[in-house]
Amino acid sequence: MKLVVIGGNAAGLSAASAARRGKPELEIEVFEKSNYISYGSCGLPYYIGGIVENSQKLITISQDDFLKKRNIPIYTNHEVTSVDFESKTVKILDIKSNKEFEKDYNILVIATGAKPLIFPSLDLIHPRVFKLHTIDDANQIKNSLIGKNVQSGIVIGAGFIGLEMLEAYSEIGIKDLTLVDIQTVFKSKSKDFIFKELEKNGIKLKIGSLVKQIEPLSDERLKVELQNGTILEAGFVQVSIGVVPNTEIFKDSKLKMIKGAIVTDEYMNTNIPSVYAAGDCCTVYHQILKRNVYIPLAPAANKMGRIVGNRIGERPTDPFAGVLGTAIFKVFDLHCARTGITLDEAKQLGYDADTIFIENAEYAHYYPNKGKMSILMVFDAKSHLFLGAEITSPTPLGAKKIDVFSCALSAKMKIEEISRLDLSYAPPFAPVWDPILIAANVARKKLK
Amino acid sequence: MKLVVIGGNAAGLSAASAARRGKPELEIEVFEKSNYISYGSCGLPYYIGGIVENSQKLITISQDDFLKKRNIPIYTNHEVTSVDFESKTVKILDIKSNKEFEKDYNILVIATGAKPLIFPSLDLIHPRVFKLHTIDDANQIKNSLIGKNVQSGIVIGAGFIGLEMLEAYSEIGIKDLTLVDIQTVFKSKSKDFIFKELEKNGIKLKIGSLVKQIEPLSDERLKVELQNGTILEAGFVQVSIGVVPNTEIFKDSKLKMIKGAIVTDEYMNTNIPSVYAAGDCCTVYHQILKRNVYIPLAPAANKMGRIVGNRIGERPTDPFAGVLGTAIFKVFDLHCARTGITLDEAKQLGYDADTIFIENAEYAHYYPNKGKMSILMVFDAKSHLFLGAEITSPTPLGAKKIDVFSCALSAKMKIEEISRLDLSYAPPFAPVWDPILIAANVARKKLK
Repeated sequence: MKLVVIGGNAAGLSAASAARRGKPELEIEVFEKSNYISYGSCGLPYYIGGIVENSQKLITISQDDFLKKRNIPIYTNHEVTSVDFESKTVKILDIKSNKEFEKDYNILVIATGAKPLIFPSLDLIHPRVFKLHTIDDANQIKNSLIGKNVQSGIVIGAGFIGLEMLEAYSEIGIKDLTLVDIQTVFKSKSKDFIFKELEKNGIKLKIGSLVKQIEPLSDERLKVELQNGTILEAGFVQVSIGVVPNTEIFKDSKLKMIKGAIVTDEYMNTNIPSVYAAGDCCTVYHQILKRNVYIPLAPAANKMGRIVGNRIGERPTDPFAGVLGTAIFKVFDLHCARTGITLDEAKQLGYDADTIFIENAEYAHYYPNKGKMSILMVFDAKSHLFLGAEITSPTPLGAKKIDVFSCALSAKMKIEEISRLDLSYAPPFAPVWDPILIAANVARKKLK
Repeated sequence: MKLVVIGGNAAGLSAASAARRGKPELEIEVFEKSNYISYGSCGLPYYIGGIVENSQKLITISQDDFLKKRNIPIYTNHEVTSVDFESKTVKILDIKSNKEFEKDYNILVIATGAKPLIFPSLDLIHPRVFKLHTIDDANQIKNSLIGKNVQSGIVIGAGFIGLEMLEAYSEIGIKDLTLVDIQTVFKSKSKDFIFKELEKNGIKLKIGSLVKQIEPLSDERLKVELQNGTILEAGFVQVSIGVVPNTEIFKDSKLKMIKGAIVTDEYMNTNIPSVYAAGDCCTVYHQILKRNVYIPLAPAANKMGRIVGNRIGERPTDPFAGVLGTAIFKVFDLHCARTGITLDEAKQLGYDADTIFIENAEYAHYYPNKGKMSILMVFDAKSHLFLGAEITSPTPLGAKKIDVFSCALSAKMKIEEISRLDLSYAPPFAPVWDPILIAANVARKKLK
């Protein structure tokens, strides 16, 4: 029996490892088109910012260890260029030698991940136009900027990566930074706190207009024109306007996809027998929206990969429970998180949806507080069902409270049940009424 | 209608305030035997340690504001010395004028709180034998120690207050500190982390023997003899071996109590008509033990007080949901928390109880970690029901994860459900598999 895995990152390697644990005799080969495997791509902004000292640190397990300890050969710089699901063969390009060869498989795992979205008009090859997706991208950024006396930059895209990168650029000494997007991660009142934090850190905000064009002025200078006519100039431009599934090689195949994202069942089977898919190339089931969505995040990729491997290895496994849309990120000294659905999504689902928004101290009033945290709660005014939350906080502790909301969502709790939780209290940790309880009590008042 | 409230702290003042919101016309009087009202007694160790600058900061609302904004007169230095439930009168001693007088009431709220437990053999009046319960106690400690060149101290009692005070004494420069107790808060493996942290901070541990006697050697020096024969000497002794309900005036009455703690129903009614009780003088219902217990903590006191006030004010209110035994505390740089029941308690309840214990990084492996956190999970091997957890962590964020476990307990989750939670991930907040998920997965393996 031969298992071929396309993709040597979180999902692919979780799958390979779990399959190996179940089947020591299985022939497993992993093909990875880049030069790196098993690296924490979420850590790239912190590698650029200098918090992670070197790119080696980002690698969880080495290629060597995969071979020696798990008997899993991984071929880097090997790009799978096509798959024939009928004959069960993959075509592979050895990038270094530029030779193509074929491999047959009994079982295939597609874990090709995602790739940065590029609007056609922004697809400019220029040494100072950056994307951030791989270690090579990160090294390009570091090499282009550190010690090069670059004064200014423009970040296009106010998503997780764009926001995290503003901090990273700031940490390596770039003082004149502009953020451009039509909107940011949060559409609610929570976004004001993000904007305030960015402004506090000297970031210029150009929110509300799309980019029309990026033009090179020289090898070291670029011009960005917005659709509202604004002209910006800077020493570099980062484009981080989202990612799309990296599934182009399947676009003319019978593989079932939605907008390029592979659709699987809850055991990560695709519509094609013996073909699994996992990670950022897949849709995930959203437990509240009750449909497949494209939210490519690392925890789900790891969980999906493990499920695939357990199925192949014939080990007991849960079906994939799906996601709640939980996410967390840092914007300078503001810590933000979300889970569940937004007010608009709740209305679209037919809920009698409402929200509350509070600002509250994070600790006892007499204990040193860094500032207030904010909580937005979305709920159904009819059933009192809790539906979603957003948090902004001056501390990681405040934002990590999102996990309590996520747990409450999993348990299908009503606002009343959240207000009755027995949450922990001591002055260095919370006020006597934890902000979660305060928010739930405010929501209860609104329900009356 | 006249409402008399005995006790001017969390429970009593929550009750008075909520009653006032419901009934603007109600005559309310609060009698408080100490000189202070509405203060955060949990903040006292941080006041002594200097993190809270002055005792005024500990006060949530002033006596003046209660009168002006809420029309609630509070009489401090007024001790209720007896209650006649038949004639509905209370006897009050005005401590400053030493005059006793009577008040009648239609509704009575008992919120007399707790008082420090003193073993008869340790009941020594000495300027350097401290307890910590009131602002006066804290001031006595500060005045006796700060700038007085005291080198050494002995803390008797390794509970929350004892552990917190070791840090406070250390912060005001007392270098030679010894902790004495038969055991500490955690009885499980988690306790090793507390001991290690204490030793790292130079605390001498004398755990395993009770105190036999405290003897004064001079006004500034004391001798402590342990039952195992050990003799200790130091410049002060703190006795913090727990608290008991402050209900002595009711001991010959018909008020229903268990070991001095007033028993109420879920709306805080005592067994005597028109008499409510709330706060640290009461038992609380433990949702997993399914019986009344005595766990006097601030969040429950506040919740109980509010319920009493809502009932008196005829406002809609939940019954008191009871507690899960959630608690959190700081020992120098170690952050500890617990919720639910212990292995022994689970066995006593008839569960096929088991535990797992993990140590895990708090953040992504490449992100700066302060050290590992530990999680102990207690569960029923038969039903897979999650029953309790303990955490130790180098950060407050790690310990505050206890609230996720508390929420999972409220939702009566099984180990499998916890392992499937959609918890938040980004490098500055967690590893991609949150330690909670890792712990739940380790428990699942043990269940097989």
